[in-house]
Amino acid sequence: MKRRSFFKLGSLAALGSTILNPIESFASANETTINATNKKAKNIIFMVSDGMSTGTLNLANIYSNRILGKSSNWLQLYLDNKVSRGLMDMASASSIVTDSAAASSSWGGGFRINNGSLNVSPSGEEHLPIWQKFKLKGKKAGCVTTVPVTHATPAGFTVSLKSRNDQSVISEEYLRIGYDVLMGGGQQYFAAEHRKDKKDMYVAFEKQNYVVAKSKSDLKNTDKSKKLLGVFDFDALPYQIDRKQSTELTNTIPTLAEMTEIAINQMKDHKEGFVLQVESGKVDWAAHANDISALIHEQLQFDDAIAVAMKFAEQDGNTLVVITTDHGNANPGLIYGKFANDHFDSLSKYNHTNEYILNNIKNNQSESQIKEFIKSTINVELDDEDAKTIASYYNGLKKGDDGLYNYKHLPFKAFAEIQKKHNSVGWISMDHSADYVEVAMFGPGNHLHKPFMKNTDMHYLLLEAAEVENKF
Amino acid sequence: MKRRSFFKLGSLAALGSTILNPIESFASANETTINATNKKAKNIIFMVSDGMSTGTLNLANIYSNRILGKSSNWLQLYLDNKVSRGLMDMASASSIVTDSAAASSSWGGGFRINNGSLNVSPSGEEHLPIWQKFKLKGKKAGCVTTVPVTHATPAGFTVSLKSRNDQSVISEEYLRIGYDVLMGGGQQYFAAEHRKDKKDMYVAFEKQNYVVAKSKSDLKNTDKSKKLLGVFDFDALPYQIDRKQSTELTNTIPTLAEMTEIAINQMKDHKEGFVLQVESGKVDWAAHANDISALIHEQLQFDDAIAVAMKFAEQDGNTLVVITTDHGNANPGLIYGKFANDHFDSLSKYNHTNEYILNNIKNNQSESQIKEFIKSTINVELDDEDAKTIASYYNGLKKGDDGLYNYKHLPFKAFAEIQKKHNSVGWISMDHSADYVEVAMFGPGNHLHKPFMKNTDMHYLLLEAAEVENKF
Ligand SMILES: [Zn+2]
Ligand SMILES: [Zn+2]
Repeated sequence: MKRRSFFKLGSLAALGSTILNPIESFASANETTINATNKKAKNIIFMVSDGMSTGTLNLANIYSNRILGKSSNWLQLYLDNKVSRGLMDMASASSIVTDSAAASSSWGGGFRINNGSLNVSPSGEEHLPIWQKFKLKGKKAGCVTTVPVTHATPAGFTVSLKSRNDQSVISEEYLRIGYDVLMGGGQQYFAAEHRKDKKDMYVAFEKQNYVVAKSKSDLKNTDKSKKLLGVFDFDALPYQIDRKQSTELTNTIPTLAEMTEIAINQMKDHKEGFVLQVESGKVDWAAHANDISALIHEQLQFDDAIAVAMKFAEQDGNTLVVITTDHGNANPGLIYGKFANDHFDSLSKYNHTNEYILNNIKNNQSESQIKEFIKSTINVELDDEDAKTIASYYNGLKKGDDGLYNYKHLPFKAFAEIQKKHNSVGWISMDHSADYVEVAMFGPGNHLHKPFMKNTDMHYLLLEAAEVENKF
Repeated sequence: MKRRSFFKLGSLAALGSTILNPIESFASANETTINATNKKAKNIIFMVSDGMSTGTLNLANIYSNRILGKSSNWLQLYLDNKVSRGLMDMASASSIVTDSAAASSSWGGGFRINNGSLNVSPSGEEHLPIWQKFKLKGKKAGCVTTVPVTHATPAGFTVSLKSRNDQSVISEEYLRIGYDVLMGGGQQYFAAEHRKDKKDMYVAFEKQNYVVAKSKSDLKNTDKSKKLLGVFDFDALPYQIDRKQSTELTNTIPTLAEMTEIAINQMKDHKEGFVLQVESGKVDWAAHANDISALIHEQLQFDDAIAVAMKFAEQDGNTLVVITTDHGNANPGLIYGKFANDHFDSLSKYNHTNEYILNNIKNNQSESQIKEFIKSTINVELDDEDAKTIASYYNGLKKGDDGLYNYKHLPFKAFAEIQKKHNSVGWISMDHSADYVEVAMFGPGNHLHKPFMKNTDMHYLLLEAAEVENKF
């Protein structure tokens, strides 16, 4: 654990790090606005678009430009030369292709571990997660996400546990450690009626000085002298495009950008600073479902949160913002062909996710009913054969996909293949890929950013940027 | 055409460009070695791995690290902090997804044109290609490639022509303009017996002071006082892994790295400097064939050429090296799963391309013969059903793929799908994708490199780096 441990001695520390890392002279992208070399990062906002292949970043930007008439915020940071950029190798101890738990743990614990674990090494050694390190140094620490707040990506920054699956335990660990802001989904891991042990975690959190929010309106009651737990759905929060079609969901469930803003406000006046992880977790889920429209809109939801974080960081001047992903997933791409442009633009007419559509086709519905329903939701006219294919999954003739987030075996893959003929978007699989991932950094500490890094380097970079000595 | 036209006045020019482009202050990656801001690029080496998805760059680097025991040269440039990095949007006038002709023309002519054309606008206007601009300013100019030297990527830097398909005309244009070094494949466009007009282009080139090489051994006769035409195969040069299995091919056909070295030597002493395009064209062809092993080895062939260019540029100090690709293709990725590592490593046993294998299965060969042949070439054991699938394309039961480079309709797609079960590599399609592409730059002029650029910006960047006024 001695790697990059250093003393907290202002400019001497900076000098030391230059000697130790002679090639770390990579200049920040925009020296006129950043000029960060000797400045300490008081705050860190670490933003993860979970499972974002390079194609996801590209397609969301193309959508933003063509349909919304403006660049995505992420790419605008490149156009404005505001951030440093690099690639990152996310391999885990057990595989070239990581899962989200090992990925987040590589950043969170500074070590590559096996897929499925949270900051516990293959031999059983526990690594102290980085948000705990920062808490021990007096900072406030939090996580916001669109999936259960106990999910792998927040957990990799906050707890050490052999299996990512013990989410009921993770909620208890959060309370024991006392994180300052926790928001996302996952009522099943907090509510007494859903937990196996019937423990009411909401009451337990309230007893320990937390404001507990279960709906967007509860967020009006936040109190900076208290901590904040927000749990807004049974499991993950709804997809952005489905939410937009429902006044009820819009009124009760906050967006990632809204949660980000509240989290920052909740912690920004703390004298010792704060660290916040922001995850757009359903980018990954949409990729697992090969649902291009859901994917683009979850990426754009992430992009909105980038704007919130950047607005704060630019005004604050003491905040390092890291923007990245933990691994590729399904490597979507728009495919060459005469109709590529029209096909892509047709995505602007997709008003529901494939999850919504496939869940709302009823057993033994007729092919013409299925056609009509799909036309009404995404403006796609299925031909007879494709309608028959979809129907066959609802009349018992065929069984749909297996998959982590698809316990009902809905035919996501078959539906994506049918959609491909209409939208020209292809996928390599329904799972993670070995892609090197994109990393952008803004603000103090980004002078430490190299153009190609290992995932574990991130751990030490964050500590060094904040001038927190790695001794615990 | 007035955009970024500027006067050639040394430091005043640099000042002017800063005023015009206030956000172009992106510092070179390694200021200690590059320090290029006010230096003029005397030479330019522009390197294109044609059709390289981000996954291709990643997988070649993973192969290099795991199998060859060293980083790829491209990623090593990032590790050593020697280059600037950016993304580039390669859309054409007619489509979000470009072909190689429109892509190369965007760099070569400074305008987005329709797919299929070479520096001719949709309304018929001809754009003067950049290698001609440099020749008019006194520089030597050349192209080397592993596909026909008359193919789209070299042609986009060198000629203006309505259709990329007129490769016999392109060979005549090359002679008329008088490029200094031309090497690659394409005998069918030069040899009298293969040309429709029966013109012997070899004789025509020799009459105009060219040394003509038709085999690797002829390259011993190069003469710096003459120009050089090297045409080493009927169409494209063989894939690197097939070449390695043949002493004859190894002896008669140079590698891309060898051609790059000869091209540099041929032009490097020219007082006014030189410009050279280096293309690994069969990266694209391997992606069109969904052949992961061919793809990785063509990318590594490109990587070897990077080493040659960088060695020269680092010694020379006056050479801008641009390393990029013209578009994604098929977006390959290694897929998550228990056997991802072993599956990936099994690629080290692939000793032939899918092109070689599918061309060497004979009609009506038995399934056990097919199994044996595939085992002997790539060490993969087909199960009975997959052997039957392959056999069905050779006994008349099924017809293979259509596709630009597959006139025999061989079953590339079916074979890739079978291989996927053994190597865990997936593909989105057999065609180009809308990926933003990776760009790295080394040397004088790379201070002009922004983190996100349009393809057409490259044209003006190259002129500005070389301080060549854009007036013709
Ligand atoms: Zn995932
Ligand atoms: Zn191509």
